[in-house]
Amino acid sequence: MSDLAQLVATLGQQARAAARALAGTPPARIDAALRAMADELLAAEASILAANAADVAAARAAGQVPALVDRLTLDSKRLAACAAGLREVAALPHPVGQVLREWTQPNGLRFAKVRVPLGVIGFIYESRPNVTCDAAGLCLKSGNAVILRGGSEALRSNTAIAAALARGLAASGLPATSVQLVPVPDRETVRLLGEATGVIDLLIPRGGRGLIETVVRSARVPVIKHYDGICALYVDRAADLAMAENLALNGKCSRPGVCNAIETLLVHRDIAATALPRLGAALLERGVQLRVDEPARRALGDLAARRAGQVTAATPADYRTEFLDLILAVKVVDSTADAIAHIEANGSHHTDTIVTADAAAAEQFLAGVDSAVVLWNASTRFNDGFEFGFGAEIGISTDKLHARGPMGLEELTSYKYVVRGNGQTR
Amino acid sequence: MSDLAQLVATLGQQARAAARALAGTPPARIDAALRAMADELLAAEASILAANAADVAAARAAGQVPALVDRLTLDSKRLAACAAGLREVAALPHPVGQVLREWTQPNGLRFAKVRVPLGVIGFIYESRPNVTCDAAGLCLKSGNAVILRGGSEALRSNTAIAAALARGLAASGLPATSVQLVPVPDRETVRLLGEATGVIDLLIPRGGRGLIETVVRSARVPVIKHYDGICALYVDRAADLAMAENLALNGKCSRPGVCNAIETLLVHRDIAATALPRLGAALLERGVQLRVDEPARRALGDLAARRAGQVTAATPADYRTEFLDLILAVKVVDSTADAIAHIEANGSHHTDTIVTADAAAAEQFLAGVDSAVVLWNASTRFNDGFEFGFGAEIGISTDKLHARGPMGLEELTSYKYVVRGNGQTR
Repeated sequence: MSDLAQLVATLGQQARAAARALAGTPPARIDAALRAMADELLAAEASILAANAADVAAARAAGQVPALVDRLTLDSKRLAACAAGLREVAALPHPVGQVLREWTQPNGLRFAKVRVPLGVIGFIYESRPNVTCDAAGLCLKSGNAVILRGGSEALRSNTAIAAALARGLAASGLPATSVQLVPVPDRETVRLLGEATGVIDLLIPRGGRGLIETVVRSARVPVIKHYDGICALYVDRAADLAMAENLALNGKCSRPGVCNAIETLLVHRDIAATALPRLGAALLERGVQLRVDEPARRALGDLAARRAGQVTAATPADYRTEFLDLILAVKVVDSTADAIAHIEANGSHHTDTIVTADAAAAEQFLAGVDSAVVLWNASTRFNDGFEFGFGAEIGISTDKLHARGPMGLEELTSYKYVVRGNGQTR
Repeated sequence: MSDLAQLVATLGQQARAAARALAGTPPARIDAALRAMADELLAAEASILAANAADVAAARAAGQVPALVDRLTLDSKRLAACAAGLREVAALPHPVGQVLREWTQPNGLRFAKVRVPLGVIGFIYESRPNVTCDAAGLCLKSGNAVILRGGSEALRSNTAIAAALARGLAASGLPATSVQLVPVPDRETVRLLGEATGVIDLLIPRGGRGLIETVVRSARVPVIKHYDGICALYVDRAADLAMAENLALNGKCSRPGVCNAIETLLVHRDIAATALPRLGAALLERGVQLRVDEPARRALGDLAARRAGQVTAATPADYRTEFLDLILAVKVVDSTADAIAHIEANGSHHTDTIVTADAAAAEQFLAGVDSAVVLWNASTRFNDGFEFGFGAEIGISTDKLHARGPMGLEELTSYKYVVRGNGQTR
């Protein structure tokens, strides 16, 4: 066994032992530990920020792009937000122990379906060191041990944060190994975590497509993926155009770089001649580039000519691209059914919305689009665990198994059946 | 692309198209199709039994063991049971469309979590041709298309059955490709199904450990495993011995070859001297071989000596073995906590039961044993979808993600979130 394999095996054994201990820990003690972790995080501010400054300096020296450096950077305010996040998670209801269903069979057997922790969660992520706190808090609250494998660019920061969290755990009498950081963040450890059958109950990769594909390719343990969002806004012929404009601007411009941004604008042909000049003007004004089909170009009229640099012809690939930028693919469709067919063929089953005053068209869309979150007269930005009222979010699943859409605490649990009888046999 | 890869790709495309059609099919039409499939199965009895006779003859000629030949064999009665099973599934409530939860956020957004089909299910199984009907019925009822990959020894039978099912589908106006059989049942098709990301939403392998391990090793699509059951019966010091005897005999002898049979008997030391002679005599009488630790041998006393051929010393491996035979590993434990620790270290998290009149010991066991089904004063045989009242069972999951324990119709579904607003943005 290689040194790295030995390392991951040891982390795994420690995590399993911690998970056993956590399964029998009263909820109040878990909450106390979360608060102690918050305390230790604040107490260690100086060392965490110093470690982070070294990571940031190294990233700058390596010529990393400003967006990455920004994601990597911690300051007092961001660290305080991490601590506050742990306290908020402590205040949430406990998912474990909930009785999901109870029933009695004619033979007198009493059945209960009870929520239990998954056990050991592997969490693979990239540059944000605050994710170290967030993931640790959510996994612990749901009764799970977690092995965190952050990005190499954040190793110093993550190490300092994980040490503080471990002190909080130990101070509360919980195993410090409930939260462990993989100290060697290379690709090989990703592979080893994925092969740890019987040790890791769920592996969650969160990050760029390359990272997730690496995990999926090699993993033999269960994985819940967080792939991209190719989200569409469909403006039906019965749409309120002021609402459509608001939803388009919110969906594209508020944060173009995240997965619940819209990448495609579909417009019903009956309303294209009025909708597209209005929406187009508003989007172009905000600096959005439009990739349009020919009917959309005609509907845009003068605007397309005057803003020729911003309005270009769409290729088929544009409708299947997660731009994560101020770029929007635009298409005129013949009907709601046509919009649904386009989304099913080109979208990523993440988040799609219809704007319409026609309830029948809305229900057709809501039923026909097979995405994790489908909306009627609301922004795609609402695919978010906090907006759902989950109080927490570890990510947004693009899978259909176990968890779909925003993943909160409940999605980090499993269940078992408890059956009580008086000697029944078959 | 190889011919086989092309074949599996075509099956996959057809299944996805069928799944799209099924997602919009009214429940009553699905039930009508299930009944039509039952009709066609009975109408095709002569051809199905002829095909089956050819499979059975080939299996005999190949020197297959009698148990396999029996599993393979169909007759009028077994075929009628398949048809009746499809009608029973048609009569069950529909899982799809159920609203699992509804709530409204302070901003007025109305959320609904709605059950939807998974999409396309891949089902890999071995010699029983009746599983072809059962799996097809359950997948269709839950709105899914299914690709069935049965064993090579049952190919003629499965082909005849699948053809009848397809006629029933077509007669009901549903895509005949809602249920497809892989016509080339070699290992390569197992691998290809496991690699069909974006096509297969869930792969369920059911069969021997070798088959399941092959699937798990190569699959990149989500898999729910049906591994072995190393199930324990724990006789606490406060056990009713008549009840313990019944549960032991039921758990071991009624069907030793299936996964919910007990493989381990744990006895509290305070009751060993009375419990073990009684339980041991009853088990030995039924032809069960006992693999015992030294304290158990002492407790058995004379019996161990008189039945020396049936009572042998247990090795550590015996406590981690799924015998699937009239063999039982026996161990004396010091306490309920000791029983729990043994089960957690040696069992397979499948099904475990405690016999006791002591409610505190029972609750300690039910909380402490992390198995899919944990029972108090009831036989491990109750880990079964029908006994749970599910009305159907596609298997028993040994995973913790998505489905744990008996899998019925609900476990073949996912969900989506439907959000209704009036123009909300963030």
